[in-house]
Amino acid sequence: MTAIAADHETTISPTRPLPSYLADAWWAPEDPQRVSSVRDASTGEPICRVSAEGLDTAAAVAHARAVGQRSLGELTFHERAMRLKQIARHLDEHKEELYALSDRTGATRKDHLVDVDGGIGTLRTFSSKARKELPNAQVIVDGAVEQLSRDGSFLGEHIYTRLTGVAVQINAFNFPVWGMLEKLAPSFIAGVPTIVKPASQTAYVTQACVRLMVGSGLLPAGAIQLISGSAGDLLDHLDHRDVLAFTGSASTAQLLRSHPSVQTAGLRFTAETDSLNAAILGPDAGPETPEFEAFIKSVVLEMTAKAGQKCTAVRRTIVPDEHVDAVVEALRARLDSRAVLGDPRDAATTVGALASKDQQAEVTRAVESLVEAGGAVRCGGVDGDLGGVDAEAGAFFPPTVLSFDDARTPQVHAVEAFGPVTSVLGYADVDDAVELAALGGGSLVATVCTHDPEIAGAFARGIGSHHGRVLFLDRDDAKTSTGHGSPLPHLVHGGPGRAGGGEELGGVRAVKHHMQRTAVQGSPDLLTGITGVWHRGARAQTATPETVADGSAVHPFRKSLAELRLGDQFASELRTVTLEDIDAFAASTGDTFYAHTDEEAATANPFFPRRVAHGYLLVSWAAGLFVEPAPGPVLANTGLENLSFETPVTYDDAIRVTLTAKEIIPREDEDFGQVRWDAVLHNQHDDVVATYDVLTRVAAEKKPEWA
Amino acid sequence: MTAIAADHETTISPTRPLPSYLADAWWAPEDPQRVSSVRDASTGEPICRVSAEGLDTAAAVAHARAVGQRSLGELTFHERAMRLKQIARHLDEHKEELYALSDRTGATRKDHLVDVDGGIGTLRTFSSKARKELPNAQVIVDGAVEQLSRDGSFLGEHIYTRLTGVAVQINAFNFPVWGMLEKLAPSFIAGVPTIVKPASQTAYVTQACVRLMVGSGLLPAGAIQLISGSAGDLLDHLDHRDVLAFTGSASTAQLLRSHPSVQTAGLRFTAETDSLNAAILGPDAGPETPEFEAFIKSVVLEMTAKAGQKCTAVRRTIVPDEHVDAVVEALRARLDSRAVLGDPRDAATTVGALASKDQQAEVTRAVESLVEAGGAVRCGGVDGDLGGVDAEAGAFFPPTVLSFDDARTPQVHAVEAFGPVTSVLGYADVDDAVELAALGGGSLVATVCTHDPEIAGAFARGIGSHHGRVLFLDRDDAKTSTGHGSPLPHLVHGGPGRAGGGEELGGVRAVKHHMQRTAVQGSPDLLTGITGVWHRGARAQTATPETVADGSAVHPFRKSLAELRLGDQFASELRTVTLEDIDAFAASTGDTFYAHTDEEAATANPFFPRRVAHGYLLVSWAAGLFVEPAPGPVLANTGLENLSFETPVTYDDAIRVTLTAKEIIPREDEDFGQVRWDAVLHNQHDDVVATYDVLTRVAAEKKPEWA
Repeated sequence: MTAIAADHETTISPTRPLPSYLADAWWAPEDPQRVSSVRDASTGEPICRVSAEGLDTAAAVAHARAVGQRSLGELTFHERAMRLKQIARHLDEHKEELYALSDRTGATRKDHLVDVDGGIGTLRTFSSKARKELPNAQVIVDGAVEQLSRDGSFLGEHIYTRLTGVAVQINAFNFPVWGMLEKLAPSFIAGVPTIVKPASQTAYVTQACVRLMVGSGLLPAGAIQLISGSAGDLLDHLDHRDVLAFTGSASTAQLLRSHPSVQTAGLRFTAETDSLNAAILGPDAGPETPEFEAFIKSVVLEMTAKAGQKCTAVRRTIVPDEHVDAVVEALRARLDSRAVLGDPRDAATTVGALASKDQQAEVTRAVESLVEAGGAVRCGGVDGDLGGVDAEAGAFFPPTVLSFDDARTPQVHAVEAFGPVTSVLGYADVDDAVELAALGGGSLVATVCTHDPEIAGAFARGIGSHHGRVLFLDRDDAKTSTGHGSPLPHLVHGGPGRAGGGEELGGVRAVKHHMQRTAVQGSPDLLTGITGVWHRGARAQTATPETVADGSAVHPFRKSLAELRLGDQFASELRTVTLEDIDAFAASTGDTFYAHTDEEAATANPFFPRRVAHGYLLVSWAAGLFVEPAPGPVLANTGLENLSFETPVTYDDAIRVTLTAKEIIPREDEDFGQVRWDAVLHNQHDDVVATYDVLTRVAAEKKPEWA
Repeated sequence: MTAIAADHETTISPTRPLPSYLADAWWAPEDPQRVSSVRDASTGEPICRVSAEGLDTAAAVAHARAVGQRSLGELTFHERAMRLKQIARHLDEHKEELYALSDRTGATRKDHLVDVDGGIGTLRTFSSKARKELPNAQVIVDGAVEQLSRDGSFLGEHIYTRLTGVAVQINAFNFPVWGMLEKLAPSFIAGVPTIVKPASQTAYVTQACVRLMVGSGLLPAGAIQLISGSAGDLLDHLDHRDVLAFTGSASTAQLLRSHPSVQTAGLRFTAETDSLNAAILGPDAGPETPEFEAFIKSVVLEMTAKAGQKCTAVRRTIVPDEHVDAVVEALRARLDSRAVLGDPRDAATTVGALASKDQQAEVTRAVESLVEAGGAVRCGGVDGDLGGVDAEAGAFFPPTVLSFDDARTPQVHAVEAFGPVTSVLGYADVDDAVELAALGGGSLVATVCTHDPEIAGAFARGIGSHHGRVLFLDRDDAKTSTGHGSPLPHLVHGGPGRAGGGEELGGVRAVKHHMQRTAVQGSPDLLTGITGVWHRGARAQTATPETVADGSAVHPFRKSLAELRLGDQFASELRTVTLEDIDAFAASTGDTFYAHTDEEAATANPFFPRRVAHGYLLVSWAAGLFVEPAPGPVLANTGLENLSFETPVTYDDAIRVTLTAKEIIPREDEDFGQVRWDAVLHNQHDDVVATYDVLTRVAAEKKPEWA
């Protein structure tokens, strides 16, 4: 392979092959035979040449598995998240460079917000969610502990550990930045190195983004590699340790899915393919309702944004039979007044060009076949008005609305025109609308426009299982909605059936897709060692009021994050609850519920022996029993979780509390962190009275600055 | 098709084809051409004939999608769970019938406990978990609500809805009862009808179990169908609505995975294939340690139970180099003293026959190829001592231990002898052991035997990602462990790579594998309608102290489950906190933390303005503000979840509470249920002070019996 040293050679030129980034160095073939030329979508000007001929894909995989795994493996989830945040900041500072290149893809400035800013925002959201929802460690615990033996000596639970291979992403041309970053964010947090293979048509934008990331100096060695050009035999080198995430056409997805690495070597494959997404106007949302207006706006937006080249675009507009014409008219009127085709560098343009002349030809073919199948052109069409743009040089296509007399015409549920095109179909009732939506065979997203919670519920149950996302649009969220077409980092993206059967994004859910869920079984001590979370029954270092008083033990509240260890424990004395205590608590709090104040009624209640102490009295007293009052590293009680009252406490019973350091989570960007304490209340018979987790904020070092 | 009416014709006979159960009726081919004969594993006696020739698989799928979906769709998760519990009871009452048949498969009574009792127990665990962990409804909410707009009018979250097709299970011969029931339990709870296709060799046991279930009258119409014989063209009729779960060989899994329904129609496919599972003796667990003894016992058990015909059996015994001989000796000694081959109907027998002569031949071939690759026979082997059993009539094979000088011999990590056979391999250090385990290419389960939590952690991180389950064995759990080879309903079963890449069981996780996860976005009102969980910002029916006093509103605590509606709300008055209140609370509870008692130190703490009220004072007062003291339908406060303190409350601040019915969960088998209330505390400036969920037990009807 030929490494490229000089930085200027990594920039984009119409004469040189676009460089790849392999084994932490730039590389390009010297004199490739198989090469494709990429042109400006609006003007046809040449931009660059693309070829990865001779690229050693086996070396790329080996580098990721060795170097990338090692460098990412040295970091915790939070450390990786901090890197992502810094990378996002760096990209944000340089995003004008990406905008300028993106102009050449035919996309408008508004479209760039989705691709460039959307990509950067995805890094930010994943960074923030990882630091909030994951431990500052390398193993994720999934779900509750299962007690598998009566005596508690044998437990089971689930953990996620990262895959030991590489995350390969094969992306579509329409989102060269977001498409890479939305897949990179979760794999990076998981600790799995990535190989990016963008679509050639817009690979120069992706390459520029990688160049910025590499230039930031923030990428761990081997964490990212880029193949500018064909993936060659890359897949041959992948197996069950790796994951392949594909975005693009259903036919390419099928090709990849049939590869031996997927079929027999256990390569995890996930696909997100464009689908025939529907927007459904609810039966309650006729003309004159605010929902109708919101619906029309949304459909027009989803037809025209990115010139309709979004796998989430609305291909099928499903409306009550009686409103078909009103909807068609409203769409036409809005398109007439709002859609201005043109070069995205022209400020008046609202709808850019398709990505290439090839795409233009493909959309033309698709619309022709829809018309042949019975579609009536109600607006636009293959001979539609282009408003004077140069349709020879640029890949323009007019916004097009079709309608079908027969809503069950097979083609309208199968042929995708990947441009500014939608088909309007009528339905009779909710069941009919659900059936029509289902004819798409599985979709990424649908919009349901209704203001009726029951109709919303019926649609959710009806179409949920064949959709990855459903947007419910009404007057309350029309203004604040992020829109039908926008996958969000917080929510899963993908869909069953035709949509590819995959799942991306969705916050921590997507991180877990780069990890293996494993059931682990063992004793409390071993599971503590495995998970980094203390388990009831495991070893503890116990302090008591006596040992603290005589100096032979340190109260765990006197330990900073640096000193505290899992299993550091404080076990209180017993304190007796009197009837007077219960009365006084009722009087001071106002909680005079009969179980605390009325002996006869309390005794009649089958869950109580007689009058009982308030649950809140018990947890308040427990705090009194375990607290260490003087200023120290424990800064605040920030919350409490999973409080369960097990045994009622009546007067003359006594309680004691055992508090144990369960999970210690330092923060990368603060001088304090979180400590989760296991709290168990027992009565004088050693019955468990209550269990819960106490959340505290604890200083990283012994003495906070202000103390 | 030929339906069979008379019940006696559904029983097993050596002359008639074993009946199938289709569209809620028994059926068998009249005079099939392609038929296989099944014989007793120990004696060779004929048991039955198996053929599904002429079976209309398209009709079976159509029946499941129409009738099965409808009848299961009328039930909630809890109602389905109650059915499972009753079915389990019915099977338990008739399990001797299943034992008697199982004897004929070569399995011992101990083996039956795994298959028959294990299967019944799986139904019970799923029933109990569903009623405890799922709502009494039809939609599952996954994870937290994401606020997607600043004003809270646009939210996102995830729901699971059931798939609209059928769950097809294709099972292995070794667990004819458990294999069916472990797949049935989660699909039944999810509300997806099942088609069962057992392996012909032991299909008569499965058929008997289905006959018992049908006879119980507890199965909803179309919920289960059974194909006794070849699945024919069944797969051709499946698509993205359906799920296919396979247990068996890796080669059959690959064949199924390459089927067009999986490749192009989006059929969800999950495989659980036998793998080369390892048992690893930790470096700390040498001879003389309790771990060593536990290890030997476990390996012998996993070699001999079910005559080693378990996909979880220990094929590779990986031990420190220096202990290879000690391990081999200890295995041989224990096998000599404990393993008695024979007919399972003989009480002395501890190791039964393999399932058939074919299996016997296959295990022989596998052992021969391992020996050819360099394996030294240390015990047993193809010419090993059978202790006088009739190896011509019965499919017997002696417990066999091999050892390999070269632990990296490829065959030992690839050739599976599906019988009582294990190979002992030596390792140098933990990294080496991890690498050896990884050579299996992905496994269902491994045992790691160590008493050191750090070694356990290192192994978990090292081998976790290529295992579905890891059992950590030590002196503390050796006696209580459920064992290496036993999948548990609580824990996931399956594994990556060679193990098939699937995941079964794991409690509610497995239910979700029969459902689609969908992101839903919308306003609080619409999401409330969709999820059955009240969302902050959604419509509420608000009662206040005034409206309750003047009789114009009812306090929600006065409403039974039958009367209570989501959004029923009580909004309290403000109550002012004084310094005296804080002092008094500190004195009575003993919680004298400086933030409440020391003005100077509290002010120095950057999180507090000056002395603040205890968090527990706030929640105790909140209870006083919202409580309705007289006896009524609210029976007890059972817990509290997700308490988060947002804004400190100092003296002279005031607080108020808003309590709203968030989730109402009636129970099928009790006259009370659970109500989850959303609680929000505000201060006098309307800042949020704290948020949490209050859990209460509420009577189903207005007046509990005892009141």
